[in-house]
Amino acid sequence: MRLLVTGGSGFVGGHVLRGMADDGHAVAAVVRGGSDTSRLDTRAQVLVHDGSTEGLHALVAGFRPDAVLHIASKFVAQHQPADIDPLIEANLRFGCQLLDAMSRSGVDAIVDFGTSWQHFHTAPDEPQAYHPVSLYAATKQAFQDLIRFYAEARGLRALTLKLSDTYGPGDTRAKVIALLNRISASGETLAMSPGDQTFNLSHVDDVVGAVRVALARVTAAPAGTVESWAVRGEEQMTLRDFVQLYREVTGRAVDIEWGKRPYRDREVMKPWLGPLLPGWRQQVPLREGLAALVADV
Amino acid sequence: MRLLVTGGSGFVGGHVLRGMADDGHAVAAVVRGGSDTSRLDTRAQVLVHDGSTEGLHALVAGFRPDAVLHIASKFVAQHQPADIDPLIEANLRFGCQLLDAMSRSGVDAIVDFGTSWQHFHTAPDEPQAYHPVSLYAATKQAFQDLIRFYAEARGLRALTLKLSDTYGPGDTRAKVIALLNRISASGETLAMSPGDQTFNLSHVDDVVGAVRVALARVTAAPAGTVESWAVRGEEQMTLRDFVQLYREVTGRAVDIEWGKRPYRDREVMKPWLGPLLPGWRQQVPLREGLAALVADV
Repeated sequence: MRLLVTGGSGFVGGHVLRGMADDGHAVAAVVRGGSDTSRLDTRAQVLVHDGSTEGLHALVAGFRPDAVLHIASKFVAQHQPADIDPLIEANLRFGCQLLDAMSRSGVDAIVDFGTSWQHFHTAPDEPQAYHPVSLYAATKQAFQDLIRFYAEARGLRALTLKLSDTYGPGDTRAKVIALLNRISASGETLAMSPGDQTFNLSHVDDVVGAVRVALARVTAAPAGTVESWAVRGEEQMTLRDFVQLYREVTGRAVDIEWGKRPYRDREVMKPWLGPLLPGWRQQVPLREGLAALVADV
Repeated sequence: MRLLVTGGSGFVGGHVLRGMADDGHAVAAVVRGGSDTSRLDTRAQVLVHDGSTEGLHALVAGFRPDAVLHIASKFVAQHQPADIDPLIEANLRFGCQLLDAMSRSGVDAIVDFGTSWQHFHTAPDEPQAYHPVSLYAATKQAFQDLIRFYAEARGLRALTLKLSDTYGPGDTRAKVIALLNRISASGETLAMSPGDQTFNLSHVDDVVGAVRVALARVTAAPAGTVESWAVRGEEQMTLRDFVQLYREVTGRAVDIEWGKRPYRDREVMKPWLGPLLPGWRQQVPLREGLAALVADV
């Protein structure tokens, strides 16, 4: 297939781009003008977007993909006023330009990424009920409303993968593993929340696996199909338990003062356990993925 | 009350601004820099927004409204690629800036406007199910997702009025009444669709009445309440029947060739009949409103 990928310069997008090229697909990466493309997989055709709707349409029409993997996203855990324009720009304006360019070019299949944070809480009989943790999550939900227009009016087929936390090689984000690596190296003591929040981690290879399944599913779906499915790690654990696992796997000491910081506003204490993508299962157990990761560092 | 109004330079917003000032409220109109403010009600304090989140926050914090009436909107019946950026800008970015500015200023009540076009079709047991007619309608639905974040995370109280078509004095939009006025004056023959689409019209005075009811309701609601309600004309009629009514009320001849044009894509043949705003009823019958309107022209 010919696949157009957004967000290919990022952690998850970079792994997806590489995985799709490994599978033999012809891949193109849409990047903004001025982006650092040095980390992009060299097999990807680089398409530089000037920011306009017309410009994006020309790129999509020129590459003629069979499907789009829309991974570009602006993430903010707790937004500040200055984050609003970038959130709207990345998660809604660019996405809408993309959907429109696809529709005008006859490209009718998209896999995009939502977040478990669209579901701060849900009832068992309504696993997809929308209760956002953050404004970031709200922009993800809003994008799904734009997708629905293109699905119902133009026949777009769309599959949204709602991710929880991810980890893996090459992750430069300031996430918990990076934090633990840092304090184990420096010997500093870290003040943390009480640590009873339960969460899960997906290895990025498993996310790439989910994209493979999603791609097969969305390109076989009838016109107008809109679906969303969860992708998450199997091991549900508290932050305290995770730190203990890190100690065991790495043999490193990490010094944490639990309870010295409050939980953040709308801290997710129990993760969303919505329906998993059919036909996909985690392949990388957390202990194994973590061991491989720290062996690399 | 102190009321901050967006869209006060427009048709509906102008009538709402005047109506709120008539009721004795202190009103302020947020306008973009460079806007024509000559038609704004002179009792309104004019607040010029520079387009930034911080700039809007300063205006909201300075005026300290008790509630916001968010009427500014970009409407496009059938969008072209060039409409995407303006749709996102007006209906999502500006709205999100406004919600954030309110949240930071402790302003916790908003009345905003949705559209019956969020519901191309619905089932009786799910009158609010989302099926957009147009991308415009999709941006309206998307904005409701942003509202939900501010409601659940920050205690915002929000009431969305979903309007059908509106009419009344001072309407400069290219709507059906303006069209009929034009061809009755020029004597030209107008090619139209078969004309069997059923619709309804609300007089703008009734919309202002609905805003009064909504304002009382939203400011009495518990923190975090999110509601949406329909506001529509009581007389459901086909376009053909409406043209006949126009002839009767005005005594004017209008020459129409029915069926010379196709229905447009996703023409709404049956209007959404979702639940009406409690405590509100139409006061201006269509025949009466139309007679008053054409007497003015």
